[in-house]
Amino acid sequence: MPTTLLMTLDCADRVGLLARITGFVASQKGNFTEVHQYTDPINGWFFARFAFEVPEGTTLESVRRDFGPTAVELNASWNIRDQGRPLRTVLLVSREDHCLADMLWRWRSKEMNIEVPLVISNHDTLRTQVEKEGLPFLHIPVPADPTGKDAAFRRISDAICDVSGELSILCRYMQIMPDWFCEEHLNRVINIHHSLLPAFAGADPYRKAYDRGVKLIGATCHYATAELDAGPIIHQQMIPVEHYHTPADMRRLGRDCERLTLARGVRLHVEDRVVVHGSRAIVFGD
Amino acid sequence: MPTTLLMTLDCADRVGLLARITGFVASQKGNFTEVHQYTDPINGWFFARFAFEVPEGTTLESVRRDFGPTAVELNASWNIRDQGRPLRTVLLVSREDHCLADMLWRWRSKEMNIEVPLVISNHDTLRTQVEKEGLPFLHIPVPADPTGKDAAFRRISDAICDVSGELSILCRYMQIMPDWFCEEHLNRVINIHHSLLPAFAGADPYRKAYDRGVKLIGATCHYATAELDAGPIIHQQMIPVEHYHTPADMRRLGRDCERLTLARGVRLHVEDRVVVHGSRAIVFGD
Amino acid sequence: MPTTLLMTLDCADRVGLLARITGFVASQKGNFTEVHQYTDPINGWFFARFAFEVPEGTTLESVRRDFGPTAVELNASWNIRDQGRPLRTVLLVSREDHCLADMLWRWRSKEMNIEVPLVISNHDTLRTQVEKEGLPFLHIPVPADPTGKDAAFRRISDAICDVSGELSILCRYMQIMPDWFCEEHLNRVINIHHSLLPAFAGADPYRKAYDRGVKLIGATCHYATAELDAGPIIHQQMIPVEHYHTPADMRRLGRDCERLTLARGVRLHVEDRVVVHGSRAIVFGD
Amino acid sequence: MPTTLLMTLDCADRVGLLARITGFVASQKGNFTEVHQYTDPINGWFFARFAFEVPEGTTLESVRRDFGPTAVELNASWNIRDQGRPLRTVLLVSREDHCLADMLWRWRSKEMNIEVPLVISNHDTLRTQVEKEGLPFLHIPVPADPTGKDAAFRRISDAICDVSGELSILCRYMQIMPDWFCEEHLNRVINIHHSLLPAFAGADPYRKAYDRGVKLIGATCHYATAELDAGPIIHQQMIPVEHYHTPADMRRLGRDCERLTLARGVRLHVEDRVVVHGSRAIVFGD
Repeated sequence: MPTTLLMTLDCADRVGLLARITGFVASQKGNFTEVHQYTDPINGWFFARFAFEVPEGTTLESVRRDFGPTAVELNASWNIRDQGRPLRTVLLVSREDHCLADMLWRWRSKEMNIEVPLVISNHDTLRTQVEKEGLPFLHIPVPADPTGKDAAFRRISDAICDVSGELSILCRYMQIMPDWFCEEHLNRVINIHHSLLPAFAGADPYRKAYDRGVKLIGATCHYATAELDAGPIIHQQMIPVEHYHTPADMRRLGRDCERLTLARGVRLHVEDRVVVHGSRAIVFGD
Repeated sequence: MPTTLLMTLDCADRVGLLARITGFVASQKGNFTEVHQYTDPINGWFFARFAFEVPEGTTLESVRRDFGPTAVELNASWNIRDQGRPLRTVLLVSREDHCLADMLWRWRSKEMNIEVPLVISNHDTLRTQVEKEGLPFLHIPVPADPTGKDAAFRRISDAICDVSGELSILCRYMQIMPDWFCEEHLNRVINIHHSLLPAFAGADPYRKAYDRGVKLIGATCHYATAELDAGPIIHQQMIPVEHYHTPADMRRLGRDCERLTLARGVRLHVEDRVVVHGSRAIVFGD
Repeated sequence: MPTTLLMTLDCADRVGLLARITGFVASQKGNFTEVHQYTDPINGWFFARFAFEVPEGTTLESVRRDFGPTAVELNASWNIRDQGRPLRTVLLVSREDHCLADMLWRWRSKEMNIEVPLVISNHDTLRTQVEKEGLPFLHIPVPADPTGKDAAFRRISDAICDVSGELSILCRYMQIMPDWFCEEHLNRVINIHHSLLPAFAGADPYRKAYDRGVKLIGATCHYATAELDAGPIIHQQMIPVEHYHTPADMRRLGRDCERLTLARGVRLHVEDRVVVHGSRAIVFGD
Repeated sequence: MPTTLLMTLDCADRVGLLARITGFVASQKGNFTEVHQYTDPINGWFFARFAFEVPEGTTLESVRRDFGPTAVELNASWNIRDQGRPLRTVLLVSREDHCLADMLWRWRSKEMNIEVPLVISNHDTLRTQVEKEGLPFLHIPVPADPTGKDAAFRRISDAICDVSGELSILCRYMQIMPDWFCEEHLNRVINIHHSLLPAFAGADPYRKAYDRGVKLIGATCHYATAELDAGPIIHQQMIPVEHYHTPADMRRLGRDCERLTLARGVRLHVEDRVVVHGSRAIVFGD
């Protein structure tokens, strides 16, 4: 089975950019299997994602090293990684298990190319369910006072670091994270919010949706940022509701929407299909 | 062809309500073809819509008169009308014609059971297009100053009254209406807003949607109220967008969404399927 | 907490039917919380579903007994049951666990009002997963030869009977069932087929969908009947696909669609919202 | 305003292909604005679409000439055209006007980059509506007998040729076309069928959908081929239906679905986003 590498890259647009990069890949005897390119016409920025197979003997490291000088010259943000290697992913959860159970099923059935070295929770409720899967469960209570909260998130950050976590998923983790935490893990923490952001940011969105009488509700998968529910949006899905749906009905209906929206957003990230640029996420969709 | 009557009714809930009303219809030899009933569990309110055929000789007037005492006793809001009679509907439009053209097509092809006695615009742009259809077009410019604006809307209100308009549709009519106008025509003016309200109320929602990087855009059909874009929502639809869609692309994609959302909302109103209760619309959907 | 009863009923249409039934419910001091009525205009058939609360002391049995004479007179098919009592539901599965895992999660989290007295499989693969949930797992291999197959389904039928199963769900159970089995359990076996029936009935629908180059795939939840994949359809959902989705991709994408479509179809049945009439299912949707 | 060229290309896959083509574009000082590439993993076929701006002075003709030798060497099917030039598009219609009216609106409002030199119909019904738009209307009756029918389609083919038609759209044109006609205009005739093909091919699909009791109906935009309703599918959309929707209701609901599905499919073709390969359409979607 050949090695497939994924390269993402963004930089200021200019003539010849694509020829330059595809020429480099050709020089490595790489064969493209999927290419996405997009130039933002409003600010003249070039974005691309390349999937290519490399011949036996060519390694991720050698390709990275050889591409370095070109990237420097282009002044580009870039990344190359091996599609086959699972991403080390830490799950954070509170008391509701629908997103967690779904994510664990996708991990267990190998639908999602992730390893789960750790599950962290601010409650002990879901310990048995997690340990049944053979996964370590870490209970880190989060006090309400700023100092205690800060210390808790210091422990969380260290725990993620200790297991070499590359991505953290907030599976309905009901805590607002300190700014420093969001910045330390920028674009590496994915959250699911149970509304069609920017509508109904903050607490209890289904109640707000009911009061406003909307006919569509939904969920938003986004990167966590210091500003609450304002990070770059990766994916959104919606479901229709009717007047007879109470907030409790919406919570029930919303669970299916939340877990699918989260799973799809995470998958896009895991497959290196997301490039963040300012407040917007470029998503080279599958 | 038998006469079908549509009755809508809402009142405080109590035991025996449905038996009482269906008993009344049976006493009129009415045969139900479609019944919707809903009790709001949060505030104990009863809502219903009944479609029933009455035998030859039974008239709308006699049914209304006979039902009067019961309605008074139940302290109910109610309405009965003849399904076959078209609703007299005034269209208001500015310069963009996509909602207008769509609505005219539905009127012309008899898909929508409306008569259009008048089209009003704050611009003269679409006169030819409207007059080609054999419809009167009234150009009422709307000045920016409050006094001038008020006078313009006085003229609009009078014009609607003169043609016995029962419903007005804002087919992308780009004017904020005075409070008194909204109150005078309460629940009889339907607007289409080009966002998934409450997100992006006010001007230029597609630009705001682009800046926020949302992955779903949409349209909202609602009754116009004094508070801008805050009236009871009748219907909403959405379309997915990608990072490469500029605000101009969204405008283009949005046009299809807007006209279908408006048409569906208007249809629900025309078929007496909407009962407004506070800020929420009960929609007995087809 | 008051008792809520669900009554479904269908019979030939006539004047006064609804008044008669709602009058009966009123005589029992029942208070309606949700009513659906539909008359098929093509064959003049009356369908209805009533949810109503009865006062303390009124029992399911007494209501049933009191309604009996009316039902006989109307020559109606009817059913009344207690909304609160969970439906005894047997799950059948082969080797793929996505529908099973989803259904178990809904049962465990009490989202779905069912009891699961038994899981049956033609393979032993999922035994551990089921027993971890504390549920009995019965492995009944199904031989290919007609006699062996028949005997296996005799055992299955008996096992369902032994646990007083009221509903059986085929959670991707990959066996064609004998005609006598389908007839014995008519409208009490729900299947999920991984295509938008009637397209791609039978084996390997995703491969067929790929070969035909369709742009939408989906899943169909229906009652199992002797004719393969031809039973009354309860619910369907779809997902868009693109040219780059291989049959394997469709299988992956389809799993989410299958389990949601199945769950929704089962929920509609469990809430007594489905009335089968010939080859069509009347679904009083929530 | 710079000239943007659209190049589509498909050929057997090999290493270096993309570098070769992008290198060619760079040599022409072309700047990519949008690139799509896809390799079919099942049969090893390479497909691509490139949009690139060329500097003043570079012409479509010179780029085509310069690319010729490369294309020959690659043994590729290819096409390059000027994005700005409208496609000459002939509309065919019978008696129902919903798709025609929609297409004319898109043409008139310049939403779709087409010229309409001619509208052809087998009935005279829509003449006034077409001529009101200032377009020539050609009534070519189609007799039922094979010889007469053949002669009629000979006239149609000649008429398309006479106006240099590059694309023909069947806007609910209710005639089965002779094989020779389909072959002569291969991949240049787009049809809309009112079902989710392959379900309900042929006549009266809404009636069939009603009889089967499906819960989703839809429309399919595809290239016309000699085999009825079996050509490569460009786009499909669906709408949910309920038990109470009669075939007549489906016809009404379906009209909106048909015209949007057709418009989207035509747009994809007009923007050169479709590459047909065997029975499948590769669609580089916007």
